[in-house]
Amino acid sequence: MISDGFGLASESMARAFVQQQSDSFPPEWASILDNLLVGTTRTRSSSTLVTDSAAGATAFSCAQKSFNGAIGVSRDRKPCATVLEAAKHSGYLTGLVSTARITHATPAAFAAHVVDRDMEELIAQQVIAYNASLVGGRGPTVDLMFGGGRCYFTPMNAGPQLGAESSCRSDQLDLWRFAQQAHGYTAISTRKQFDALAATPLSHKLPVLGLFANGHMAYEIDRKPTEEPSLTEMTIAALNMLHTAATGKNGTLGNAPGFFIMIEGARIDMAGHDNDPATHLRDIIEYWSAVAAVRAFVDANPDTLLISTSDHETGGLTLGIDPEYAWYPHVLGPVKQSADAICAQLRSLVKQPDQLRDSVTTQVLPLVLGIANATSYEVGRIVDAVAQGTKACKHAVGHVVSDRARVGWTTGGHTGVDVGLYAYGAESAGIRGSLENTQVGQLLATFLGVNTTALSPLLAHQTIEQEGFRRNKLLV
Amino acid sequence: MISDGFGLASESMARAFVQQQSDSFPPEWASILDNLLVGTTRTRSSSTLVTDSAAGATAFSCAQKSFNGAIGVSRDRKPCATVLEAAKHSGYLTGLVSTARITHATPAAFAAHVVDRDMEELIAQQVIAYNASLVGGRGPTVDLMFGGGRCYFTPMNAGPQLGAESSCRSDQLDLWRFAQQAHGYTAISTRKQFDALAATPLSHKLPVLGLFANGHMAYEIDRKPTEEPSLTEMTIAALNMLHTAATGKNGTLGNAPGFFIMIEGARIDMAGHDNDPATHLRDIIEYWSAVAAVRAFVDANPDTLLISTSDHETGGLTLGIDPEYAWYPHVLGPVKQSADAICAQLRSLVKQPDQLRDSVTTQVLPLVLGIANATSYEVGRIVDAVAQGTKACKHAVGHVVSDRARVGWTTGGHTGVDVGLYAYGAESAGIRGSLENTQVGQLLATFLGVNTTALSPLLAHQTIEQEGFRRNKLLV
Repeated sequence: MISDGFGLASESMARAFVQQQSDSFPPEWASILDNLLVGTTRTRSSSTLVTDSAAGATAFSCAQKSFNGAIGVSRDRKPCATVLEAAKHSGYLTGLVSTARITHATPAAFAAHVVDRDMEELIAQQVIAYNASLVGGRGPTVDLMFGGGRCYFTPMNAGPQLGAESSCRSDQLDLWRFAQQAHGYTAISTRKQFDALAATPLSHKLPVLGLFANGHMAYEIDRKPTEEPSLTEMTIAALNMLHTAATGKNGTLGNAPGFFIMIEGARIDMAGHDNDPATHLRDIIEYWSAVAAVRAFVDANPDTLLISTSDHETGGLTLGIDPEYAWYPHVLGPVKQSADAICAQLRSLVKQPDQLRDSVTTQVLPLVLGIANATSYEVGRIVDAVAQGTKACKHAVGHVVSDRARVGWTTGGHTGVDVGLYAYGAESAGIRGSLENTQVGQLLATFLGVNTTALSPLLAHQTIEQEGFRRNKLLV
Repeated sequence: MISDGFGLASESMARAFVQQQSDSFPPEWASILDNLLVGTTRTRSSSTLVTDSAAGATAFSCAQKSFNGAIGVSRDRKPCATVLEAAKHSGYLTGLVSTARITHATPAAFAAHVVDRDMEELIAQQVIAYNASLVGGRGPTVDLMFGGGRCYFTPMNAGPQLGAESSCRSDQLDLWRFAQQAHGYTAISTRKQFDALAATPLSHKLPVLGLFANGHMAYEIDRKPTEEPSLTEMTIAALNMLHTAATGKNGTLGNAPGFFIMIEGARIDMAGHDNDPATHLRDIIEYWSAVAAVRAFVDANPDTLLISTSDHETGGLTLGIDPEYAWYPHVLGPVKQSADAICAQLRSLVKQPDQLRDSVTTQVLPLVLGIANATSYEVGRIVDAVAQGTKACKHAVGHVVSDRARVGWTTGGHTGVDVGLYAYGAESAGIRGSLENTQVGQLLATFLGVNTTALSPLLAHQTIEQEGFRRNKLLV
């Protein structure tokens, strides 16, 4: 399990928030992660002391340091076999669950090999084995995928038969149809389809491709439960399906020695980039819930190992700003929407300054952020930022809330601070202390009894550059 | 061992600095603390989510939460027996080592009981048992003290026989003389005396009071080895003396079941308050060295338990600021003095603006901070701040360096972020996970087999308010 962009300060923040919500949670109350803490993970990449999520996930998946932006490739730009691929090669079933696009850096680094994380068109092809299964054998490498990112599976200029949703592709490949026709993927995209699958995991066959948003899935604070499943719901359904299939109770794939799954709380990171503490918090609490679901699975299946850590910290979050010796979690409670959602609305008013100011004053501050006594400085800070762009708006909204909560941030990017390492279940007693992120990857391979290094030569033929690709933004 | 104001970001920072100093320290190199990491400590006090060092140390010493400012008193303002006192009561020898004044919050909370940490006159009386031994028995509670803070033991208007050094007292008590005459303390104050004692621990008798500075001892980056011993040197000498005495090899106190010692890297915190990364770093590396000395002692005496943690994080330190995905430890290498020392010099030029600017341009930036290509912005930032006062100057110096290193800070105070927990030696295998600071205190008591709660009633008579005391500043 990967809590993207979740530092130890984030854990301190979420714990204190829950403690202050109710007398049922005294200062001694510890979160589920607190109870699984075994050490810390060091996060640097091969190219810098501050990793991105691609190099961070590649350290876990290939058990080696690589450069920022690297998806399943070594620092000398060669494909490196991942623990997921090695598991598949050894007969395990495999899964990827993320609240981001399934083609985004973290899930991609377990099942794709490209030299730049933004080559998401090629990543989409790879994760459903458009050209070939990466490590040999019949069928695709990934048996189950739940997340967002349908747009990379949708052909450019898609017709109304695909729901007229936007495509992120620059070609006519219909990977959604290909996955179903070539590999027999059960492809689902709606809450209703997910519920049907989750209710009857025995009657569904792998492989399954469930993508519930065109882009990223919603922040937990914005999520409409009637439209998208939660991370916890996806986690439980994934465990049920993989476990059922691996143990053969549905008679289809009973020879698997088990399964390997990577579950990502992806948008914890994105809220950190926005310096948006309440959104960060809600995605953390949802991640805790997913961890609890996995722990319950481990309790029922004690030969399972659960590891949870982060690829890096995001935002330079700290719990204290001058001049007070205090911070105020209760400020985060009333916030009802992400800065991202708020600013999408406010930006639509950018050319109507009176309406914009009115919206900030009468709607956003009192009703959405729960700040009844906003100062003219706070109003002006948000109004002025809207004109400067979405990013400035999101930071302004985030900092208005953060300043009241006395929560500090030092960057809209990542930091090089160590993150927490959590473990539970089989062989977890030996996991302890301060580990390099690559050692976490080695632990996974050792536990599964697989060898990624030996497998890497099988990937030598792999195309790791996307034709016609051009970077148009900074790596983040 | 207490690393005051040392967070996990501080550990990440120091480790990366050392790794970049030499090819001998590859990315896989781990510091001594990394190798002892067992979990994290949660730091809130009873009054706020952001503790001060007094409540933080009281959580360790009395194993209970109390309010910010509390020195060995409970949240209802009653003296609470400390693990050091309970150890003494059970026949152990006891020691306190700190680079701060020995009357400062952290050491004080182990051997004194006052309702406000700034009652240092009363604290000085208590730590040498001016009125009575706090927990009964003959002689004082603390057998060995090494640190700074002579000024609180020096009578107001002290004559030249005391070196004409300044007093911090408002009365005529000569506690330095009292300690020697009433309790037979060996009282030393010079490097030469320390060396003589350290070289021949067998020939010196406890109790010993070694205070090597009038106020705090120097930051490691500023320390003159000919004038003050280092934290590591004090640590080694203290262990030798207490061990020798406890095991009876000098024939004086051979009945002790062992010893309890609290060793504090105090000024890590103060450099954090100043947002001064290079000074913070050097005190951390010196603290590592002291930990290594204690670990070597544990290796030779495996019935010993070493625990190291922090009372809180200071400064809201993070390793990354917009817009880069990088930070640069090498910037911290050439810095030769603390911001505190630099600003003491610059403030003397505050009424000579030309000389001030010249000093900043030709001395401070190129020679002391190692910044050869300083911008006019950097020069102006420091020059302007000098006029605003010492604190502003220190932050300006600290931030000029921090900005180049891409190190972020969010406060000149403390934060509520969890800190690291490190353990080694006897019974350390059972210490693991996320602990409340009070649980760390309980661990100490359990290991020693002492009961602080049962002992607290013996302290009921204790005077915990300093006569005529008036707060004149914010608690920090």
